[in-house]
Amino acid sequence: MSKPIYVLNGPNLNLLGVREPEIYGHDTLSDIESRCQALLEGTGHGLVFRQSNHEGELVDWIQEARVQADALIINPAAYTHTSVALYDALKALSIPIIECHLSNPHAREPFRHHSYVSLAAKGVIAGFGSIGYELAVRAVLSLVKQ
Amino acid sequence: MSKPIYVLNGPNLNLLGVREPEIYGHDTLSDIESRCQALLEGTGHGLVFRQSNHEGELVDWIQEARVQADALIINPAAYTHTSVALYDALKALSIPIIECHLSNPHAREPFRHHSYVSLAAKGVIAGFGSIGYELAVRAVLSLVKQ
Amino acid sequence: MSKPIYVLNGPNLNLLGVREPEIYGHDTLSDIESRCQALLEGTGHGLVFRQSNHEGELVDWIQEARVQADALIINPAAYTHTSVALYDALKALSIPIIECHLSNPHAREPFRHHSYVSLAAKGVIAGFGSIGYELAVRAVLSLVKQ
Amino acid sequence: MSKPIYVLNGPNLNLLGVREPEIYGHDTLSDIESRCQALLEGTGHGLVFRQSNHEGELVDWIQEARVQADALIINPAAYTHTSVALYDALKALSIPIIECHLSNPHAREPFRHHSYVSLAAKGVIAGFGSIGYELAVRAVLSLVKQ
Amino acid sequence: MSKPIYVLNGPNLNLLGVREPEIYGHDTLSDIESRCQALLEGTGHGLVFRQSNHEGELVDWIQEARVQADALIINPAAYTHTSVALYDALKALSIPIIECHLSNPHAREPFRHHSYVSLAAKGVIAGFGSIGYELAVRAVLSLVKQ
Amino acid sequence: MSKPIYVLNGPNLNLLGVREPEIYGHDTLSDIESRCQALLEGTGHGLVFRQSNHEGELVDWIQEARVQADALIINPAAYTHTSVALYDALKALSIPIIECHLSNPHAREPFRHHSYVSLAAKGVIAGFGSIGYELAVRAVLSLVKQ
Amino acid sequence: MSKPIYVLNGPNLNLLGVREPEIYGHDTLSDIESRCQALLEGTGHGLVFRQSNHEGELVDWIQEARVQADALIINPAAYTHTSVALYDALKALSIPIIECHLSNPHAREPFRHHSYVSLAAKGVIAGFGSIGYELAVRAVLSLVKQ
Amino acid sequence: MSKPIYVLNGPNLNLLGVREPEIYGHDTLSDIESRCQALLEGTGHGLVFRQSNHEGELVDWIQEARVQADALIINPAAYTHTSVALYDALKALSIPIIECHLSNPHAREPFRHHSYVSLAAKGVIAGFGSIGYELAVRAVLSLVKQ
Amino acid sequence: MSKPIYVLNGPNLNLLGVREPEIYGHDTLSDIESRCQALLEGTGHGLVFRQSNHEGELVDWIQEARVQADALIINPAAYTHTSVALYDALKALSIPIIECHLSNPHAREPFRHHSYVSLAAKGVIAGFGSIGYELAVRAVLSLVKQ
Amino acid sequence: MSKPIYVLNGPNLNLLGVREPEIYGHDTLSDIESRCQALLEGTGHGLVFRQSNHEGELVDWIQEARVQADALIINPAAYTHTSVALYDALKALSIPIIECHLSNPHAREPFRHHSYVSLAAKGVIAGFGSIGYELAVRAVLSLVKQ
Amino acid sequence: MSKPIYVLNGPNLNLLGVREPEIYGHDTLSDIESRCQALLEGTGHGLVFRQSNHEGELVDWIQEARVQADALIINPAAYTHTSVALYDALKALSIPIIECHLSNPHAREPFRHHSYVSLAAKGVIAGFGSIGYELAVRAVLSLVKQ
Amino acid sequence: MSKPIYVLNGPNLNLLGVREPEIYGHDTLSDIESRCQALLEGTGHGLVFRQSNHEGELVDWIQEARVQADALIINPAAYTHTSVALYDALKALSIPIIECHLSNPHAREPFRHHSYVSLAAKGVIAGFGSIGYELAVRAVLSLVKQ
Repeated sequence: MSKPIYVLNGPNLNLLGVREPEIYGHDTLSDIESRCQALLEGTGHGLVFRQSNHEGELVDWIQEARVQADALIINPAAYTHTSVALYDALKALSIPIIECHLSNPHAREPFRHHSYVSLAAKGVIAGFGSIGYELAVRAVLSLVKQ
Repeated sequence: MSKPIYVLNGPNLNLLGVREPEIYGHDTLSDIESRCQALLEGTGHGLVFRQSNHEGELVDWIQEARVQADALIINPAAYTHTSVALYDALKALSIPIIECHLSNPHAREPFRHHSYVSLAAKGVIAGFGSIGYELAVRAVLSLVKQ
Repeated sequence: MSKPIYVLNGPNLNLLGVREPEIYGHDTLSDIESRCQALLEGTGHGLVFRQSNHEGELVDWIQEARVQADALIINPAAYTHTSVALYDALKALSIPIIECHLSNPHAREPFRHHSYVSLAAKGVIAGFGSIGYELAVRAVLSLVKQ
Repeated sequence: MSKPIYVLNGPNLNLLGVREPEIYGHDTLSDIESRCQALLEGTGHGLVFRQSNHEGELVDWIQEARVQADALIINPAAYTHTSVALYDALKALSIPIIECHLSNPHAREPFRHHSYVSLAAKGVIAGFGSIGYELAVRAVLSLVKQ
Repeated sequence: MSKPIYVLNGPNLNLLGVREPEIYGHDTLSDIESRCQALLEGTGHGLVFRQSNHEGELVDWIQEARVQADALIINPAAYTHTSVALYDALKALSIPIIECHLSNPHAREPFRHHSYVSLAAKGVIAGFGSIGYELAVRAVLSLVKQ
Repeated sequence: MSKPIYVLNGPNLNLLGVREPEIYGHDTLSDIESRCQALLEGTGHGLVFRQSNHEGELVDWIQEARVQADALIINPAAYTHTSVALYDALKALSIPIIECHLSNPHAREPFRHHSYVSLAAKGVIAGFGSIGYELAVRAVLSLVKQ
Repeated sequence: MSKPIYVLNGPNLNLLGVREPEIYGHDTLSDIESRCQALLEGTGHGLVFRQSNHEGELVDWIQEARVQADALIINPAAYTHTSVALYDALKALSIPIIECHLSNPHAREPFRHHSYVSLAAKGVIAGFGSIGYELAVRAVLSLVKQ
Repeated sequence: MSKPIYVLNGPNLNLLGVREPEIYGHDTLSDIESRCQALLEGTGHGLVFRQSNHEGELVDWIQEARVQADALIINPAAYTHTSVALYDALKALSIPIIECHLSNPHAREPFRHHSYVSLAAKGVIAGFGSIGYELAVRAVLSLVKQ
Repeated sequence: MSKPIYVLNGPNLNLLGVREPEIYGHDTLSDIESRCQALLEGTGHGLVFRQSNHEGELVDWIQEARVQADALIINPAAYTHTSVALYDALKALSIPIIECHLSNPHAREPFRHHSYVSLAAKGVIAGFGSIGYELAVRAVLSLVKQ
Repeated sequence: MSKPIYVLNGPNLNLLGVREPEIYGHDTLSDIESRCQALLEGTGHGLVFRQSNHEGELVDWIQEARVQADALIINPAAYTHTSVALYDALKALSIPIIECHLSNPHAREPFRHHSYVSLAAKGVIAGFGSIGYELAVRAVLSLVKQ
Repeated sequence: MSKPIYVLNGPNLNLLGVREPEIYGHDTLSDIESRCQALLEGTGHGLVFRQSNHEGELVDWIQEARVQADALIINPAAYTHTSVALYDALKALSIPIIECHLSNPHAREPFRHHSYVSLAAKGVIAGFGSIGYELAVRAVLSLVKQ
Repeated sequence: MSKPIYVLNGPNLNLLGVREPEIYGHDTLSDIESRCQALLEGTGHGLVFRQSNHEGELVDWIQEARVQADALIINPAAYTHTSVALYDALKALSIPIIECHLSNPHAREPFRHHSYVSLAAKGVIAGFGSIGYELAVRAVLSLVKQ
């Protein structure tokens, strides 16, 4: 029996669609959640979609995904670059992990060029705005099928 | 109509006046809050004065200040040097941001020389102990008036 | 009227499916081309799919794509990390550019962590093996539609 | 009258004994707590043994230990390498602080070679797996006796 | 009996109000001098307010302040980042030293992130434009009173 | 009897006058060639003026210039910063070598601040747009006369 | 009506023609001044040609050129690599600035590879000995004409 | 049948108890040897306890321990940070290796933060003064029993 | 049945014997080819001996050697230090690879101290001039025999 | 009359053939000595073949070789990377010096990528296991003949 | 006929004997001048002894010493570490240059570990306080005699 | 009663006067010893003058000097830059320590710019060849007298 797909979002992503829409787009996290839901329709996978500004809460959720999910999509936002704790939590998972970013971190400030999360992720999708989540769900479905 | 001034304090500042008073002085956070309150008397601005050891909680409060404050004074303490999440939260604010430190970080250990918060702050006041908060409130009043 | 999508592949990718199939998979470049072709079926976009071991030839083709393509997907392979020439060529394009990698360069040797191509790319897809090309084509179709 | 010994555990240590037992061993945190308890039997010291994935909660607990403990043993896990906040909290303690790691961080990835916690710790015990906690308790008892 | 407050200004500050007023504001050094003078009215402290493009002359004046001033406010401008000579001169002073900058150096080019002057200064005020001088005078008056 | 002057142009310079004319100007390589030709009129020196996107082809031409030219003007473009092969080829020449850049690389991204070609060049002319080639030809004529 | 061209020379250039003539040539600064004068003959531009060993004096003169010159040619010599003050002074100019060096700094010691002056200069001419000044004057005349 | 435990001490440790006793304590190496001996009483393991100022002699002894010891405790002192030779010697051992330091190197000068020995050691005990040796012997007994 | 030995030579090596013979010797590539041929006489191995200034062509030839050679000797010259593409091509070979240099790169400029090719080579022979090729052929014969 | 060839071996090489034979091979130093001896048969050169774990003893022997040898082959092992003393000793020799390594240091840990010995060596042979010594002897014979 | 010995002193040395005498001693520059004078008595060399806080003035004086002195002793103080201009001035001298420091810069802050002046000096004397000048004069007399 | 002065010499200094006399001079260590002896005549101090190529032996002798000498002059040669062991040994001495070098390390290769010995030395004398030892003895006599 299939388990849900977890989509976890890091700090400040709750402002999506509100903060600087000309840069990050007008889609809110809730819009994205709906579109992910739609893509999972009929696949047998549910969706667990959450956001937190707390590093520790994200670690808690990754540990939860370890036993309750079939795959994990994570947009770690600022914690991408600073959190060894996320990396350690992700390392313990044997399900596919997809790292997802709205913008392309490698075209931004140098401190965004390093990703602890990439060390544990199967794949990375970055720079496509909210479309990136849909690509990530598609990728997950391909990977889970294999 | 005026909105309040937010004064946010980062980790370990709750020990102010208790921990090493010969270095950090005998003033507690509560003493500082009173003095800030006094300076705001009659300006039409209220005061929201808080402390947290949690990075995520500080991010929450900065997001709150984004819509509910006329200015933000922040002493990010240890998170000054390590938190991209604070920086991302602060970037979303269009009100004046003042970075305030009790001691002068640039006269301390090398890992305190870099500030993510400075990248988003209008101005920095450092090294004046508890007096620094009063200078920050005065600075805020000048900036808000402009 | 629609122009074709260019998919350019850098050095050593001609060995795909032949070299270390347990790592890079059994798909050949030709298999990938077919799948990209299939996805473009009925979109009005043709496909130009090429591979070269020569940095200069890739520069030539990027310049060609500048006027003849609606979008460019590029897997620059080893030149990702060393070629300012590719970056300069890509900067001159106003069509969407997708950077695509079979494996996740950020989980490999340090010299693969820097990408000149990322500085010019709209988005990056890495680590999904040959599936990544399909995701890239889907991404291109979304971007071109906008 | 004696105060308890605090043993604080950082992020992901709640998975001990569950995650990769062939590397980290089959002992759970609860097993370790029992063994520490046994060693303190008859010494007059109680045991406070906790784990958190939250940096801020660890800071809270260190501040608590500052007035309520006779010694602090801390396995900061991932926060060892990234948390100035933990360092600032620890600096305020005048009781002995022991830094404890299951594996030897200096034989792992470069980003694990720096420890903010070491700057404030009396001593370090690393690489002995769960035995390290017992060594730490013995060390604490020797230090407290002095 | 009180001694004067010295306010020293480094290279290119003589162009203040003339050069790029949209960035640095319309206040000239002379305007700032007047406002500092006004704040010192009735405090018993005179004001010595000077500017030089010469590193050596600034060193001469700092040495003069060493015996003739009650406090020193210095905006070292470009010499902030390059002058060990200023640092050595400042180290010899036992009166309060305030480092003042019109803009926030930490939000500018990397070579402006290091300050030799900070190593000797009691406090730093940066980013407030000409208001910063007033804050500095207020800070000095608080510090001298102590 | 006089030999020709070689003017070699590196990758992407074939787009000159076409790509971003507001930055690089409206002159094409062909316009520049004509103006160089005009300056050489009556000097007894012919002109060999070429462009390639291929590092290896530029190496071939430098080797050709080694025996067939009286001087070499080279705008290595992107290869300036990455090509040890060009440097090794240039080192073998005993004729004057002039390095020429349309823009000033030292006012651009850090990876453009290093030049392998400068290690072998007699002189550098940078930042003058297409005028720079004329200055280079004049410089060559002065040097060859000596 | 035309204003003069300023040619400013930094430390130790007064020894030109005297110090190590086999390296720097037999031309003195005075010879160079004459040749620049000759090139300006009939252009309507006068010539202001000066040398100083003092960083502050060079800053003074750059500020003077800001209002009194049509263009500035500067050979900052040793201050090229160490003077933020020169950079700040030059940034305030809206006339063309040409950086000129007798030798090619990029073929010398590593500490000569960085130029603060390049950050503000329109163009750079280096390595041509005294001929470089003539090229710089020609370049200035082209630029001023535009 | 059990083999002895080797305890090897590096340069300057022969001065223990003599040099700066207020820092390093009053215990001499001989006192420590006695206490280690006492702990091994009845375990069937003898003790080989030596000190040398010579890197090569320490290499010789490590090679000897390779075949004649059941475990190795080493306080490499200054050679911790500089000796690849010690590392290479230790790598050849299949018995447990414990690295032991009187003080905590990570709280000292930066050049003491790197340890070649840690790359080969099972575990590290640092900062406990002479007590550390006793902890190391206890650790060894636990490890050998396994 | 034996396959040939490939000997590939990188950029500028076609000038061997012509360029700076006092440094690189009077032997041409053709002389070296003859001596390699002589050493292979009677071994059953043919010789494929080539030179190219083009990185891409060298990649092509390495791929060819992958299926058609029993061993590969490569003097990558300048591409040693800059070519990830060569490294990726070499990694795909399961035959012995020998890296050969005329001079000792580690006794030259710092940018020649890193070799991408060494990461894939079985062995390195450097500094022996043309003799090095003969040593390399002898080494290959020993390795192939094993 | 011919002098002997010195072959000096650094720390831990006495374990050759004993330690990890699957990596370093089954040949002992004594086997290698015999094979070198055999190659020197009839050349008029004797062989001095030694090993030491002591940096100082290797310095002594290099000084001895300075007057008593016709050539020096040295496998400095761990001292390759750390010993300025060996470099200084080697610099005083005017006979050919060959640096020899069993494995290829550039394919190992970063701290093995720098060689002080390479700064003084004529040539380097690395990665061929015990065969490397034979190649070195052959190289020496060629060099001595010249 | 003998020329005088120049002794030049850099910034802040005019405070010698006044500033922190417990560190720098009670001797003033004038005391030191007298003692140097006494040592030169009867040698035929006069003494030119000066101090300046101005980098440019020190450059002027070094140029003067170039033709009028038999040797130069310089304590460049803060300019030791930052002045390429002093280095360039000193390089033009063919007389012996002695670099002299009151304290040992290498036992102080890292930014004092680099000396531009050392690149041009015959010898360095550091750490002996005012005695160092006497040692420098004695050294000069030995060197001049040679 | 006076104790002797120790003069210790590091690796390769036994070759002094023999190796490259045109650089290091014709004086042997024995000549230098005689001159030091002569200077100590009648001071009541004997002379202990030794050389070793062994780091460990130098450590032994420094420990000996700790109790048996009135002052220590040390030319650590190559160990200056690599030996933490020497530094640790020197730190234990309370007598004056003089670091002495024949040449000026700061005008040589970068790896000679760092000195562990300087961290413990009272003063440094470098670059004066054998005269430096005499200056050091004079310095010692001044310091011991104080």
